[in-house]
Amino acid sequence: MPESSLPQIPGVRLASVAAKIKNWQRDDLLLIDISEGAAVSATFTQNAFCAAPVTVAKEHIRNGNIRALLINAGNANAATGERGIDNARSCCAAVADALKIGAEQVLPFSTGVIGEHLPLQKLLDAIPVAADQLSIDGWDNAARAIMTTDTRPKTTSRSVEIAGEQITIVGIAKGAGMIQPNMATMLAYVATDAAIAQPLLDELVRDAVSSSFNRISIDGDTSTNDACVLIASGATGPQIADKHSAEYERLKAAIVEVHIELAQAIVKDGEGATKFVTVQVQGAANSEEALQVAFEVGESPLVKTALYASDPNWGRLVMAIGNAGVEGLDTAKVDVYLDRVQVVEAGGRAAGYTEEAGQAVFSKPEFTITVDLGRGDCSEHIWTCDFSHDYVTINAEYRT
Amino acid sequence: MPESSLPQIPGVRLASVAAKIKNWQRDDLLLIDISEGAAVSATFTQNAFCAAPVTVAKEHIRNGNIRALLINAGNANAATGERGIDNARSCCAAVADALKIGAEQVLPFSTGVIGEHLPLQKLLDAIPVAADQLSIDGWDNAARAIMTTDTRPKTTSRSVEIAGEQITIVGIAKGAGMIQPNMATMLAYVATDAAIAQPLLDELVRDAVSSSFNRISIDGDTSTNDACVLIASGATGPQIADKHSAEYERLKAAIVEVHIELAQAIVKDGEGATKFVTVQVQGAANSEEALQVAFEVGESPLVKTALYASDPNWGRLVMAIGNAGVEGLDTAKVDVYLDRVQVVEAGGRAAGYTEEAGQAVFSKPEFTITVDLGRGDCSEHIWTCDFSHDYVTINAEYRT
Repeated sequence: MPESSLPQIPGVRLASVAAKIKNWQRDDLLLIDISEGAAVSATFTQNAFCAAPVTVAKEHIRNGNIRALLINAGNANAATGERGIDNARSCCAAVADALKIGAEQVLPFSTGVIGEHLPLQKLLDAIPVAADQLSIDGWDNAARAIMTTDTRPKTTSRSVEIAGEQITIVGIAKGAGMIQPNMATMLAYVATDAAIAQPLLDELVRDAVSSSFNRISIDGDTSTNDACVLIASGATGPQIADKHSAEYERLKAAIVEVHIELAQAIVKDGEGATKFVTVQVQGAANSEEALQVAFEVGESPLVKTALYASDPNWGRLVMAIGNAGVEGLDTAKVDVYLDRVQVVEAGGRAAGYTEEAGQAVFSKPEFTITVDLGRGDCSEHIWTCDFSHDYVTINAEYRT
Repeated sequence: MPESSLPQIPGVRLASVAAKIKNWQRDDLLLIDISEGAAVSATFTQNAFCAAPVTVAKEHIRNGNIRALLINAGNANAATGERGIDNARSCCAAVADALKIGAEQVLPFSTGVIGEHLPLQKLLDAIPVAADQLSIDGWDNAARAIMTTDTRPKTTSRSVEIAGEQITIVGIAKGAGMIQPNMATMLAYVATDAAIAQPLLDELVRDAVSSSFNRISIDGDTSTNDACVLIASGATGPQIADKHSAEYERLKAAIVEVHIELAQAIVKDGEGATKFVTVQVQGAANSEEALQVAFEVGESPLVKTALYASDPNWGRLVMAIGNAGVEGLDTAKVDVYLDRVQVVEAGGRAAGYTEEAGQAVFSKPEFTITVDLGRGDCSEHIWTCDFSHDYVTINAEYRT
């Protein structure tokens, strides 16, 4: 990706600096400054052991009027008790000082090793330096500053015309690289210069996350620090408050696309991943059971090792489908396709199926497993990757 | 293990023969003949894609008066539709002919590759041969005949004095060897010469399985063919029908022990497993949440790769605990111990904890992770193993 490939978002300035939280040579601290009057929404991890910054961010966002985000890599500030909370608050206060805003207008985020205290002084020293370097051109550097062991930055953008004005959307994310930080923390920041009313934005971030980050599986674990933030700076165009307007529909579609592209990029950069697989479940009675089956298939270690081996082992697929706990599933109505190759028909091996045809699909770097439950009209999909030797190597490597 | 190390169970005769279901040189068909008047109970897989023999066995056991079991290795007769059911019934009929009993008095079991039809004629040819070789000394051969890719047979026995008579219990099982059959089918057969009333035996098999096979995790997948059978031949001692009698308590304890020893042997022989780990959850409000946390820890790929690496990565442990979905969990009350070394205290790193102490425990081939939730008095435990490079190699190998 060329330098400065991401467009500017009027109303949002960024600065990345090297706070030396770990002994890295690279930037590890990102400050995002948001203009007054912007709307900010976020979703956070459901893990009961949520990290200190998550606790503080949830508290601050309740009051609205958020003006800055501070993200550090290298230390998750998780499982750090009261001192962790105090450290997160101290960072917010330092940002507030530097930007002349209130500390409760700052959302803190951390990703990295858990159970160790933040090197607070390093962050406090770096924050004013970052505040002096804020720039509207900072998105590409930002995407790199939040990486932990991601092999590449994850960025995307869209442009939409709304009421005659060109609206821009930029998204950056970090994903499932766990060698050093030991945690598959996913962080995503999406910003637009559109003006979206706060209640609409709150709904939009939930919808977007539900169609993107909540539909991917690297290994079924949820981190203590996961968060996704959506910023509408309001710098361009009219205020959008009607969820049934064509303008909002178009804008929403583009914002959801940005989330999906970032989520897929995280799966593709999953630890040791060599395959990117869509699991599509159709013919379900409802959305819940469709997702149950999709995740059971997409998270089964036996399925994931078969993906790695390019082995169209359909016995493992039916086993996983059967394990999903779908009440009253009639297995004699279940069909399974590997791309367009039917492998299971009425619960058994499809008449025309050949190992060669299945093998040809499983050998591709990207393909779709489609399960038809034959129970209804609902369909859902998730994205997953394989379990490789490298997954074990990466995750079994001693923390250094 | 020396030959013929397992004792006889009066009232139960066995024969193992080579039906050549696969191109193996070894025995792959086991016939168990049970004397008239015995009680037989069983539990079966909850997988919706249950195999044809499971469907037939569930139907037959409803009528009681079971007189024979037929178990084949090498082909699971799963995902085989109506023809699979017909094949399982034909096998039962052949056993009935050979033993002069009713076909509905036979329980069929299969383990092996799924989605392929049984080589029926080979089984029909082998069944009369087996019927001619039935012997009260057949348990050790039986344990080997039901193996698929298990690296060793799993057997155990106990002896208990009940009302002045010596009662014997024998158990054999096969476990999580998946190279060839592609499925981690668990089969277990436990027999005693005690006389146990059918309703009590039905309860006993459920209790025994719940404390043993339902508390192990190799990779979180449940097979299409899993089954556990408990036979009380009634050849020795008085009929036991009072569940509150001291005799029954003693007998039950010994039978449960046999189940637990077989379940643990399956984990220890888990594919590529190098560690045997007990996950103990205490201080839970109820048994359900204790098991939820135990399985979340014991099945997390991040925890299992850390076990393999002998890396006391307690961040992954708290992450898994936090992911278990325990409503209202107060993480500030959570303690975690590695054997006797406290690693987490009040949700954070324990004051006296050192990496060296944690490392010493994680380097052992067997140890216990204890989680105290600080919410109540309930405790539960499960047994798990690590995820190794060999797990991926074994499961990624192409079916041959």
